[in-house]
Amino acid sequence: MSLPRKHLFSIPEGVIYLDGNSLGVLPAAARERAAQVIGDEWGQQLIRAWNTADWMSLPQRVGDRIAGLIGAPKGSVATGDTLSIKVFQALAAALDMRPDRKVVLSDNGNFPTDLYMAQGLARLIDKGHEIRTPAPEDVPDAIDDSVAVVMLTHVDYRTGRLHDMAAITRAAHDAGAVMIWDLAHSAGALPLDIAGSQAEFAVGCTYKYLNGGPGAPAFIYARPDIVEDLAPALCGWMGHDAPFAMELGYRPAMSTERLRVGTPPIIQLSILDTALDVWDGVSMEELRQASIGLSELFIAEVEKRCPGLRLASPRDPAARGSQVSFAFDQGYAAMQALIERGVIGDFRAPDIMRFGFTPLYLDKADVRAAADHIEAVISQEIWRDPKYQVKSRVT
Amino acid sequence: MSLPRKHLFSIPEGVIYLDGNSLGVLPAAARERAAQVIGDEWGQQLIRAWNTADWMSLPQRVGDRIAGLIGAPKGSVATGDTLSIKVFQALAAALDMRPDRKVVLSDNGNFPTDLYMAQGLARLIDKGHEIRTPAPEDVPDAIDDSVAVVMLTHVDYRTGRLHDMAAITRAAHDAGAVMIWDLAHSAGALPLDIAGSQAEFAVGCTYKYLNGGPGAPAFIYARPDIVEDLAPALCGWMGHDAPFAMELGYRPAMSTERLRVGTPPIIQLSILDTALDVWDGVSMEELRQASIGLSELFIAEVEKRCPGLRLASPRDPAARGSQVSFAFDQGYAAMQALIERGVIGDFRAPDIMRFGFTPLYLDKADVRAAADHIEAVISQEIWRDPKYQVKSRVT
Repeated sequence: MSLPRKHLFSIPEGVIYLDGNSLGVLPAAARERAAQVIGDEWGQQLIRAWNTADWMSLPQRVGDRIAGLIGAPKGSVATGDTLSIKVFQALAAALDMRPDRKVVLSDNGNFPTDLYMAQGLARLIDKGHEIRTPAPEDVPDAIDDSVAVVMLTHVDYRTGRLHDMAAITRAAHDAGAVMIWDLAHSAGALPLDIAGSQAEFAVGCTYKYLNGGPGAPAFIYARPDIVEDLAPALCGWMGHDAPFAMELGYRPAMSTERLRVGTPPIIQLSILDTALDVWDGVSMEELRQASIGLSELFIAEVEKRCPGLRLASPRDPAARGSQVSFAFDQGYAAMQALIERGVIGDFRAPDIMRFGFTPLYLDKADVRAAADHIEAVISQEIWRDPKYQVKSRVT
Repeated sequence: MSLPRKHLFSIPEGVIYLDGNSLGVLPAAARERAAQVIGDEWGQQLIRAWNTADWMSLPQRVGDRIAGLIGAPKGSVATGDTLSIKVFQALAAALDMRPDRKVVLSDNGNFPTDLYMAQGLARLIDKGHEIRTPAPEDVPDAIDDSVAVVMLTHVDYRTGRLHDMAAITRAAHDAGAVMIWDLAHSAGALPLDIAGSQAEFAVGCTYKYLNGGPGAPAFIYARPDIVEDLAPALCGWMGHDAPFAMELGYRPAMSTERLRVGTPPIIQLSILDTALDVWDGVSMEELRQASIGLSELFIAEVEKRCPGLRLASPRDPAARGSQVSFAFDQGYAAMQALIERGVIGDFRAPDIMRFGFTPLYLDKADVRAAADHIEAVISQEIWRDPKYQVKSRVT
């Protein structure tokens, strides 16, 4: 089956959705799966469903499916919690692997929660760790043998700028540092080879390109050869070697499962499981080519029609994830006007209009139609309407 | 409206459900709410739903409803994550309040994940903290001025034994310790006065007596007067004072919201929100009296009919939560036989048969019918059937 696969999704009439990089659309089969897990499994099987509906292995089964999308082996991905929690776990374990070094190297384009979690962890362990945040393009030069951990988001959430995963991981390892990749804007957007990169850790969320729904559970990958020596910071019972033995002492599972924490969110995990069905048989290389086709067309159309918008993403598609950002000083109001017209992207302060490209459910006709609306909003200055200036939106 | 309120729940035909202390039953309105949040809010409103469906304030609105059930003021309860994570947050903040003390006092009846999270935190901060776990009845005598934090689960998950919240909190404070209560088996089961207890922290889960569904989000309470000085260990963007300002530095919200972490699980939070509707107008005192009536009847009926079962819960109902446990050396097999007959409780190693009493959807006829089945399974030694001996169940 080729792309797009619009029939597998439930997309509102009249909407061109360019925000799948923030919250993916509803897979058509998700409603049915939710009704099943709620009505039948919870409602009818009740506590027995841990066994009869195999809720017990659901986190692992979903992890294995995500592993397949990020180039990781089965059994290497644990699911649950939020991405913030998974960042904390990866960073705590990574710092534990380099006790003599005190620098966490990230960048100032990283998504803030990653930096916040690092700041909180550094304060908590109170051993003088420093978090360095150079500009993204200065990261390679900032890797030296003072660095304990390099922690980066692969695709910049504002600009779509892509780090070179293989090269940076190699540089980190050459300097003796541990590598953590945040795949929030990569999983389901790009071909990934996490195992081949040799990075120790990767984390990500599933409500963007993986369409798991609002607040869907996150995931964490640990390189299989380090798992048995890895010290979990969040020692929850679901990461215990024998959770139902109810022992008083923590003994971590001898697998990536030690990075699980508490009772899994069964309903959202089930919906995510069904959301992952739409990936069956998708070639990530084909998806990437389709994404580049859409974003290149979008840039060309918008630049031709709206000279007042400045491209804020890398022009080279090989240096870009699956989103395109334009800077415009009236970007907030312009985005509100676009949303009212059914072209849904989003805005990031101070002046970034973001548009995400999701070839599973977008085609070139969508992109051209979106460009028509953008041209109208900009050239006719529709954004001047005072109603679009009111900053009531929180996202 | 008096108790029970069976019509507000969807309970399988032929089932007497005595495991609401492990996973509550399905509120009848939950399916519809799930269909709405998935089909309409996510499916149709998409990213706009953060504003149009007010997903932004959902964690707080749900927190306020839980606050009402545990005797806490509005604005003092944050929701999200799992109970394990909430334990970690409370304990990290509590230890930060007593930097000169190195003892965490809990008990050996605490639910293991609480102890595991404490062990992981102690290892992470690496300052020589010790976790003491005397028997539950020895806790009062173990509170001395070496104790930084007293961290207890109010109702023992195996025996149903109840700690005296007011007295222990007072003793902890008299010794200069910080108090954390885990309300996993209390919220929705007993009248609670968390604010009156003066405890600094309380945490709990919502999939037991609050019927939020499998893996429903947890909650954390912090006493309002300490919030502004409280150092969050898990500094997620949703606990930031201005999450969408996307600042590079963490500044905690000036409220209990600083104990939020990552993006909230909107679908499960919405279901929980609807599950909390069944509490409208319920008197917790009336609920408690009904619970005692059910559990006293159960103990009397079972002891009369099955002398081989030994009561493993306190005999005094005032010293017991909303569950009754019996010890029986063939408890595992007997429980499997009961479950097959539609009487659903659960088993906890080595020999505990647990039965939960949830007056929202149980009445005395249910209890008598359950006792009939227990009598049959025990007196006719139905548990001897080899099929009940196979330890395939994980919960």
